[in-house]
Amino acid sequence: MKVVIIGSGNVATVLGRLMVQNDVEVLQIISRNIDHAANLANELNCKYSDYNGLLDANADIYIIAVSDTALTPHVEFIKNLNKPVAHTAGSVPKDVLKTISNQYGVFYPLQSLRKEMKIIPPLPILIDASDAFTLDLLQQLAIKISDQVQVANDEQRQKLHVAAVFVNNFTNHLYVIAESYCQKEGVDFNVLKPLIIETAQRMAESSPSKWQTGPAARNDLFTIEKHLSLLQNYPEWKELYVNLTNSIMDA
Amino acid sequence: MKVVIIGSGNVATVLGRLMVQNDVEVLQIISRNIDHAANLANELNCKYSDYNGLLDANADIYIIAVSDTALTPHVEFIKNLNKPVAHTAGSVPKDVLKTISNQYGVFYPLQSLRKEMKIIPPLPILIDASDAFTLDLLQQLAIKISDQVQVANDEQRQKLHVAAVFVNNFTNHLYVIAESYCQKEGVDFNVLKPLIIETAQRMAESSPSKWQTGPAARNDLFTIEKHLSLLQNYPEWKELYVNLTNSIMDA
Repeated sequence: MKVVIIGSGNVATVLGRLMVQNDVEVLQIISRNIDHAANLANELNCKYSDYNGLLDANADIYIIAVSDTALTPHVEFIKNLNKPVAHTAGSVPKDVLKTISNQYGVFYPLQSLRKEMKIIPPLPILIDASDAFTLDLLQQLAIKISDQVQVANDEQRQKLHVAAVFVNNFTNHLYVIAESYCQKEGVDFNVLKPLIIETAQRMAESSPSKWQTGPAARNDLFTIEKHLSLLQNYPEWKELYVNLTNSIMDA
Repeated sequence: MKVVIIGSGNVATVLGRLMVQNDVEVLQIISRNIDHAANLANELNCKYSDYNGLLDANADIYIIAVSDTALTPHVEFIKNLNKPVAHTAGSVPKDVLKTISNQYGVFYPLQSLRKEMKIIPPLPILIDASDAFTLDLLQQLAIKISDQVQVANDEQRQKLHVAAVFVNNFTNHLYVIAESYCQKEGVDFNVLKPLIIETAQRMAESSPSKWQTGPAARNDLFTIEKHLSLLQNYPEWKELYVNLTNSIMDA
């Protein structure tokens, strides 16, 4: 299978690496920024261009791997592509692509990806398409780089994107708060890392509802009051503590 | 080293197993519930008693491994122990033990522990004591079962306990919400598990502040509005989404 990747950011880079490692032929990297395109193309050993150049016409599929918000301007650049095309954005409907091709779809890696990653984590891919031919093509591509491939329509994908915000963005923000609190209070955040990893890893075994512990879960108002007094210099974190504690108590 | 463990719950069980595996002699399990005491004692191959029995007088140290809220009644039962004693509670000052011994301390495993665990995760232990002799004894015991041992006084330990609530209890609650949302909306929560694990594991490498992504971090109001509409049937989760999004935007 031959692929052109439009984009040179985190998702484009990680997908490009995985494709090359798994015998998918990446023909060309296209990026608004020619230096970024060159860097990734050099790594993947392929051609590159900015938006003034031409898309290689020999690809089986064109993957637009740019951020959800950048997608619309990119689509306007690409127009009139008579080949299968897919975007990688969790929150964007597939039919934003219908103006550029009559064969379009989504190739959404449900993972938080960074160029700097040395080890690429397991990467579920959610696919969807306008037609059976494109869906099959996306499926063939997805199973080359992932062993967790599911078909999910726009609505299902957007719902999983909401859930992903809870388990990734919001969770990471709680880590940020904990780290910042530890720094300000002169205690060692590192000592919490085994707990952070354990909290996540045991999800693999069983439902998180089995693992809810702590003062909120046991209605321990004495400890909660003590914690609120320890947060008194941080009104925003204190408010979040109250909100989350109430939410656990109501669950 | 010889130890008597008071308690038979999750913390007592996991600490007892680790001690026995690491050549610490557990002499006796004491529990209010004689059946629970017997179960754990059978597993650890030691004596047991309920509160009507006698504490084995040959121990070097007595570890009261009961929940933070249960500690005070247990302390009342044990009184007049003229041996080093320590509790395992993150949020309780060490001097709740001073009425029962003049050598007392804390032996706090900063981890979420369950009897059912097949693999015991890395277990940082925070220790503190009334005197150098007891501190040294607790240190000797701690390094037998953990390679991450730190001295932390009451205030430091309580602050880490607050931070632990953020990274464990609150994070787990976000997982619970995500799972429940997926179930109600008919999408597959399992597909989020690699993301959950990745989000936690990369903390080992670098600060969480480097990893904040998503619509709130990039001020993507369009996606946030879409997510709020997908949460409209769940006013409590929607409110938490707003609170956490605002907190990320203010960070």
